[in-house]
Amino acid sequence: MGDPAGGVTALAREVVAGEVRAVARAITLVESRRAEDQAAADALLDALLPHTGGSLRLGVSGPPGAGKSTLIDALGRHAIAQGERVAVLAIDPSSAVHGGSLLGDKTRMGRLGRESSSFIRPSPSSGAEGGVGPRTREAISVCEAAGYSLVVVETLGVGQGDHAVLDLVDCLVLVLIPGAGDDVQAMKRGILELSDIVVVNKADGADRARAEGARAELEAALSLLQQASGGAPPPVLLVSALEEVGVAALHAGVVDQVARARASGALERRRAAGRRRWLERELTEALRARFLAAPAARARLAELEDAVADGKLLPRRAVAELLLLA
Amino acid sequence: MGDPAGGVTALAREVVAGEVRAVARAITLVESRRAEDQAAADALLDALLPHTGGSLRLGVSGPPGAGKSTLIDALGRHAIAQGERVAVLAIDPSSAVHGGSLLGDKTRMGRLGRESSSFIRPSPSSGAEGGVGPRTREAISVCEAAGYSLVVVETLGVGQGDHAVLDLVDCLVLVLIPGAGDDVQAMKRGILELSDIVVVNKADGADRARAEGARAELEAALSLLQQASGGAPPPVLLVSALEEVGVAALHAGVVDQVARARASGALERRRAAGRRRWLERELTEALRARFLAAPAARARLAELEDAVADGKLLPRRAVAELLLLA
Repeated sequence: MGDPAGGVTALAREVVAGEVRAVARAITLVESRRAEDQAAADALLDALLPHTGGSLRLGVSGPPGAGKSTLIDALGRHAIAQGERVAVLAIDPSSAVHGGSLLGDKTRMGRLGRESSSFIRPSPSSGAEGGVGPRTREAISVCEAAGYSLVVVETLGVGQGDHAVLDLVDCLVLVLIPGAGDDVQAMKRGILELSDIVVVNKADGADRARAEGARAELEAALSLLQQASGGAPPPVLLVSALEEVGVAALHAGVVDQVARARASGALERRRAAGRRRWLERELTEALRARFLAAPAARARLAELEDAVADGKLLPRRAVAELLLLA
Repeated sequence: MGDPAGGVTALAREVVAGEVRAVARAITLVESRRAEDQAAADALLDALLPHTGGSLRLGVSGPPGAGKSTLIDALGRHAIAQGERVAVLAIDPSSAVHGGSLLGDKTRMGRLGRESSSFIRPSPSSGAEGGVGPRTREAISVCEAAGYSLVVVETLGVGQGDHAVLDLVDCLVLVLIPGAGDDVQAMKRGILELSDIVVVNKADGADRARAEGARAELEAALSLLQQASGGAPPPVLLVSALEEVGVAALHAGVVDQVARARASGALERRRAAGRRRWLERELTEALRARFLAAPAARARLAELEDAVADGKLLPRRAVAELLLLA
């Protein structure tokens, strides 16, 4: 941008007016890691801040092959038919670390994409933490400011103990399929118990009975788990995204659950806690990045990591040495 | 210690000789947060390092009231009868953040405690992350150096997404009870899917049938989950710690699982990965502590946290300001 301040003001105005190209440009700007873009990105986000907070933020997680894209396509079109405007921040499988077929990528969410009230933004999934990118929060803000009433974040659960998506969304839907094989290995461990709604997808035709069996097993397990963790267990819904069965019930379930949370104050508490944890995460990451900006620290960390992994050096010794370097 | 170097050398020798009082003093030293103790603690740990790595490190997690202490008491006595020496790093419920009855605290693991081959170390559970303390890794090292062949870490799962105990142990046993009430709320969400062995405890007398039902439900759910996450589902064992039924099978299951992991190389990979993550955690914590040592940064962080939680300030703005302060 030749004139950052003027350019940002105009861009913010266009985003708030809901102009799709402006939304796309704004997300590109806030996701940029280039140093020269940061001031403009911050200025844009500040300008958009008063226009944020009004959407329902929905996370859709699940292993590759569970049919997340087809489900979001059907759910999004249903929501639009109900008068909503729908933005999707989608995983781009062409760069997925877990591979997977590229067949049909061009048509992922193709029907939703043709709706004028939809906006679909693919993001490379590689390098993302917990299936969300480092700037997903900011991308959600842009979509909110543009007036999308439903912002869907598609996440690929990977790795343990990283539940970053939970700090971003009002409702997390976990999509599972009955009888998935060993090729489906990227399922985030631990996510089941953190989900607000569990969907057993591909409850189609001959697989319907198997899906019903899977639902019964999940309900029993979740009930048992929730006795231990407190609160009501998440509902388990049968859906066929392909045949578009159960999609309206899923949409209603999401809307109802978030409306009840809003009325009770739980939604605002959840969002506030998520923002606090996000700050923690950004601060931790920034301190680490600043530390690793010192070449001596970066080189020595790599060596000490190996010594620690081999059991030859205690972590606290390594840390004490590293702190002297930067 | 008047003569740190000489005192530490003597203490290390006594620990390696298995002297119980020395083990207790050594743990106190390595757990100390006092600045003047750090050099001696580091020297002690360095001296003990060649004597570590030989034990089986067992984590026992589960909600309050699941009977973890009684189970560890029975398991520990069984292991001693098999020729093992058993150390337990136990949660001290008198300071548990989740309250709970203090009745019977004096006799927790009372029978195990009377065995000459046992060592039981209560730790205050408040302030601990994920149910383990910041120096639990070091306390395990002391126990290992003292020749305990089985080191049990009792953890109270609290909070989401913090699975620090997994980085410490060779095998994690989750203890559940059938039909637990709403008062059992401290169960760490997500831990089920991360456990190596699941125990349904209190499978006593009339509750036996209910425990068997709970086992069937858990097995079905774990099988479904593991289809998604890959690998074999963890076994679900029925135990009555009170009646000492199933304790031998649990001990054999733990020993077999770890022996197989050792033979395949998976154990060493798991330990190396755990040590790497522990280094990450210590480095992150140290960088944060150093940052917060600046009073200006600490005070401003508290203010900015509230602004971020209220949605008035974006996390990245807060971080940018904070980085200028320290």
